[in-house]
Amino acid sequence: MKKAAPRNAFYAQSGGVTAVINASAAGVIETARKYPKLIANVYAGRDGIVGALTEDLIDTSAESKAAIRGLTHTPAGAFGSARYKLKGLEQDRAKYERLIEVFRAHDIGYFFYNGGNDSMDTAAKIGLLSTELGYPLTCVGIPKTVDNDLPHTDCCPGFGSVAKYVAISTREAALDIASMARTSTKVFILEVMGRHAGWIAAAAGLAGQKPADAPHIILFPEITFDREQFLARVKLCVDRYGYCVIVVSEGVKNPDGTFLAESGTKDAFGHSQLGGAAPEVARLIKESLGYKYHWAVADYLQRAARHIASKTDVEQAYAMGRAAVELAIKGKNGVMPVIVRKSDKPYRWTIGEVALTAVANKEKMVPRNFISKDGYSITAAARRYLEPLIAGEAPPPFKNGLPDYVELKKKPVKRRLKTTFKV
Amino acid sequence: MKKAAPRNAFYAQSGGVTAVINASAAGVIETARKYPKLIANVYAGRDGIVGALTEDLIDTSAESKAAIRGLTHTPAGAFGSARYKLKGLEQDRAKYERLIEVFRAHDIGYFFYNGGNDSMDTAAKIGLLSTELGYPLTCVGIPKTVDNDLPHTDCCPGFGSVAKYVAISTREAALDIASMARTSTKVFILEVMGRHAGWIAAAAGLAGQKPADAPHIILFPEITFDREQFLARVKLCVDRYGYCVIVVSEGVKNPDGTFLAESGTKDAFGHSQLGGAAPEVARLIKESLGYKYHWAVADYLQRAARHIASKTDVEQAYAMGRAAVELAIKGKNGVMPVIVRKSDKPYRWTIGEVALTAVANKEKMVPRNFISKDGYSITAAARRYLEPLIAGEAPPPFKNGLPDYVELKKKPVKRRLKTTFKV
Repeated sequence: MKKAAPRNAFYAQSGGVTAVINASAAGVIETARKYPKLIANVYAGRDGIVGALTEDLIDTSAESKAAIRGLTHTPAGAFGSARYKLKGLEQDRAKYERLIEVFRAHDIGYFFYNGGNDSMDTAAKIGLLSTELGYPLTCVGIPKTVDNDLPHTDCCPGFGSVAKYVAISTREAALDIASMARTSTKVFILEVMGRHAGWIAAAAGLAGQKPADAPHIILFPEITFDREQFLARVKLCVDRYGYCVIVVSEGVKNPDGTFLAESGTKDAFGHSQLGGAAPEVARLIKESLGYKYHWAVADYLQRAARHIASKTDVEQAYAMGRAAVELAIKGKNGVMPVIVRKSDKPYRWTIGEVALTAVANKEKMVPRNFISKDGYSITAAARRYLEPLIAGEAPPPFKNGLPDYVELKKKPVKRRLKTTFKV
Repeated sequence: MKKAAPRNAFYAQSGGVTAVINASAAGVIETARKYPKLIANVYAGRDGIVGALTEDLIDTSAESKAAIRGLTHTPAGAFGSARYKLKGLEQDRAKYERLIEVFRAHDIGYFFYNGGNDSMDTAAKIGLLSTELGYPLTCVGIPKTVDNDLPHTDCCPGFGSVAKYVAISTREAALDIASMARTSTKVFILEVMGRHAGWIAAAAGLAGQKPADAPHIILFPEITFDREQFLARVKLCVDRYGYCVIVVSEGVKNPDGTFLAESGTKDAFGHSQLGGAAPEVARLIKESLGYKYHWAVADYLQRAARHIASKTDVEQAYAMGRAAVELAIKGKNGVMPVIVRKSDKPYRWTIGEVALTAVANKEKMVPRNFISKDGYSITAAARRYLEPLIAGEAPPPFKNGLPDYVELKKKPVKRRLKTTFKV
């Protein structure tokens, strides 16, 4: 019996990057390299799926063992990621067909898509079309999102590290304001990511243990913002503790459904002020209570902070990449590996799997029982869930005082198609 | 011959706190404990000099050895700091006299003031008055400021750590935007501290090595902001590199002398927008070039980030506290220890001293030869100066995924005065 020749794999990073998405890439590439009889080579998309559409593939076999290992400690998307959503199979059929055309040209037998719920939707659709066209392709997703909003998995790689960053930053900034409050700043506001789900804001709650500890107020996107109640609480905190630390999710909404971040002022041309939620909260406090304030917007700093990544998160990100390859070579198609929690303390987890279609376009919000009755802090249940996810440190190597992040060669794979594709 | 009885020392933290000011406190307390025949006890001011004025002293002898050691890895002001400037001896004579009254009541023979140039001015004046009143008091300053603007010292404890934080954050965020730029964000702006001097902004320059590396543009307070030239440079970077990373100092000024941060929009009541420099830079870019942008304001996060402090900085902060006590017991009065650079590479430094009056109210700006001709980046000379200051890591111990910062008991010293003082 003649054995089937090994086929190539295609790996792409999708959507907003994280401190550990490259650890998933390392998991994919290192594991694939163990099965040369099944997987010939891993090609990565330059700038995610855009690289596949434009036949701009990166030959990962040109990267040294050390460079691939280095991905485990390097943040952001080493191959480039993309915010590029493919719509339905009918609407965007040409794009899906183009993907299959490129895959066919490069004998891609395995498609690994490392992203969030949108990406799992895309991966599922590519799987559907390849079946329809009779092109043999195994599609496996790899979960990734700082937003932690994918269903069916205990958590999402990327979240644990941003959670750790936000909890640490909150604790540190709280010590700062506590030192100064008697004669200076009374209110500190930290804005964190989370357009829809408040998982990152919730993680800030880990910074404190007792009611007097910061953060004193967390504003979740899951809880409608009540201006008067909020201001009363700020005053109470300043009266009681001498200062107030507030963590606000970028996705907090007013009762009318508009984002708090949009409710600020207009410029001379009538355009909405390009502010964030934090400066808007500062403005409300300044106008109503007059306290001296400071605010910070962590933005990319939070999701790129590999220097203080969660060890648990790095391990899970790697494990998801490895599991994706193992599922694929077992012939599992249209699935995504997930993290299954076995116990909280000690934290034990194993790897499960779920159909891509079960993840596609679904969002997991912070459940109401994770948020205190008054809506401003986290409960013991939330703490039990969150604590293990930020456990452990996995610092990168340092050189001249700075993290020594790897830079890949990103050698292009020779094009085989005459056709081109304009993104 | 009868030996003089040991006298007490008073230690106070002043102004904006840092990631390592408590390391200076540890240096003071641990060193004083070695000389019980000269220094009976170290009392710390609760909330800095305010604690002295209000006779609210903290008995550091109630703190365990481990707690004092723990100060070397704990950010912010463990005893509380204050933004409380004493004016001239004539104007504020009652306050200065009150300080001497409290010192006399507690047999304070040594005054250690841990702060910036304002604080050195205050310390010098207290020294003058004590001489005038015939009260024997040895006044020694301990340098501290993230702004790095004190003269006569190679650098200021606190600066190396914020410099490291900013350089790392810039490198990490730059990897993030580089991953996404093809289909998403083109411009990232990080606002850093530095109201007058651009040292912190300069430190961001360490994140890159080659011209293509981020940060592509640094906006220094020392260089007047030229809007058209800046926008042309942003466009050039996006055209050339695909994206542009900008680090802006909060102190950047328009040609008319106003802060860039103030030149934004007004709210419905005609109040200035409470924005920072970063959102204002974002607004300019959006309106003129239309690029998708992200911005971050690090604020307290940068100066409280003990989790990623510079080892060099921690060591220097401790050494300054220790040296202050050693100077005091040698009878040196009205001085401040300083860091004297002996060589750049390897970095060698020793401890010198300078008169408080030589430091008082003076600011050291970033010299022009540290800034490139075009005003947007740092030179090799700046790099030689800055690199050693961020060298080495000194992570705190972690517990449950978070830095295990110490919390002191802060036992009050029994009041001895009937008089009170209202701050």
